[in-house]
Amino acid sequence: MNENTDANKNMNLLMFSGDYDKALAALILANTAREMNVNVTMFFAFWGLFLLRSPEKMTFENKTSYEKMFGMMTPKSPEDLPLSKMNFSGLGKKMLIEMMEEDKAPKLIDFLNGARKKGVKFYGCKLSMEIMGIKKEELIPELEIMEAKEYLQDALNANMQLFI
Amino acid sequence: MNENTDANKNMNLLMFSGDYDKALAALILANTAREMNVNVTMFFAFWGLFLLRSPEKMTFENKTSYEKMFGMMTPKSPEDLPLSKMNFSGLGKKMLIEMMEEDKAPKLIDFLNGARKKGVKFYGCKLSMEIMGIKKEELIPELEIMEAKEYLQDALNANMQLFI
Amino acid sequence: MNENTDANKNMNLLMFSGDYDKALAALILANTAREMNVNVTMFFAFWGLFLLRSPEKMTFENKTSYEKMFGMMTPKSPEDLPLSKMNFSGLGKKMLIEMMEEDKAPKLIDFLNGARKKGVKFYGCKLSMEIMGIKKEELIPELEIMEAKEYLQDALNANMQLFI
Repeated sequence: MNENTDANKNMNLLMFSGDYDKALAALILANTAREMNVNVTMFFAFWGLFLLRSPEKMTFENKTSYEKMFGMMTPKSPEDLPLSKMNFSGLGKKMLIEMMEEDKAPKLIDFLNGARKKGVKFYGCKLSMEIMGIKKEELIPELEIMEAKEYLQDALNANMQLFI
Repeated sequence: MNENTDANKNMNLLMFSGDYDKALAALILANTAREMNVNVTMFFAFWGLFLLRSPEKMTFENKTSYEKMFGMMTPKSPEDLPLSKMNFSGLGKKMLIEMMEEDKAPKLIDFLNGARKKGVKFYGCKLSMEIMGIKKEELIPELEIMEAKEYLQDALNANMQLFI
Repeated sequence: MNENTDANKNMNLLMFSGDYDKALAALILANTAREMNVNVTMFFAFWGLFLLRSPEKMTFENKTSYEKMFGMMTPKSPEDLPLSKMNFSGLGKKMLIEMMEEDKAPKLIDFLNGARKKGVKFYGCKLSMEIMGIKKEELIPELEIMEAKEYLQDALNANMQLFI
């Protein structure tokens, strides 16, 4: 197959789950797609948003009590995300990370930074952010806010879409 | 982008999970898509079917013991569904619902009724219903029964498909 | 609709979760698609790989301690997979299987063998297998190893893609 056949195609990922292992899979696909010159849109909604938080940017300003409590109970950075299964209070994840290190595989944060450098487009779901009380300045700086309608316009015209 | 570019496109959602938060995301997409004149098919299988139950329509007639027991142990209405994570025996869900109310966001049931009014097409998976012993009359009245083959015919010709 | 309209279309399934019920749904779709002469690619990554293990092929050779431990803690065959919800240490799954038997529905292993006979293409994710220490000879013999790039080339050109 011609190496360039897929260049300028579009992949749209709806990042819903906020699991460490699913985020890893999605970011490996995003990095690989960019290396193939495929355009990549990642739309983060609900739990997916926690992949883009960093602890030093957390704020309590202009948040309701529920929003503050919710912000404290949820993962504060990519490395904080749980596994989708066999997490065992973090033990299962520790084992996965050890196995990744033995294979010299990059970490989740490396794949995230790779995706940022390679031009993956990052969007945050407006409604999710309003409901959960997550502010734009708490997330990675290049993130843009997007409504469901704009997500659909992108997804309906992409060559593939996944709900992750 | 022309507002009508996406009119008459097709979105196909396979509703598998039966989680409150995932159902919310799917129904927000379904409502938004209909407002864009995108055709929407929702195919409910396995746990997804519990989104369409209502307690007052539950029946025990013509069910085996396992089917009766299963019907009792599973969610009886949309508002009964658990969160996909951080449910904490319902406490996490209560917190999410309080945050939604603070933002005056519609409830899950409102999005479901909106989707029904806007002409989303609802299908129930024949095999799942037979195995779980769920009867057509226990679900929303406009639901039609569909086999896997018909789902695939719709999905293969849609502009986007998600497994939720 | 013409029976043959969808022949030679392509369906691509990314099998990530390793849940009994989701594997059942995916394999029912894969079998049905093949009966419609739709080409089917199943790409197994992370937990999804455990669907293709058999206990008699397990090996401990050339595995690190973590890989050995991980191999012991994870499902050893299709019938070993847990439900995605209401598993209740296997009780929920037992109930589902009893209900399937009452309806004379085939078992998961039957759907898997059906998919193999009908020419579904099985691929294992190279990186996942390296990290988890799963060897090619531990899985079904027709499985081929594939990188993320090859998965994307297939998926971007398919008529539908699901992340399961």
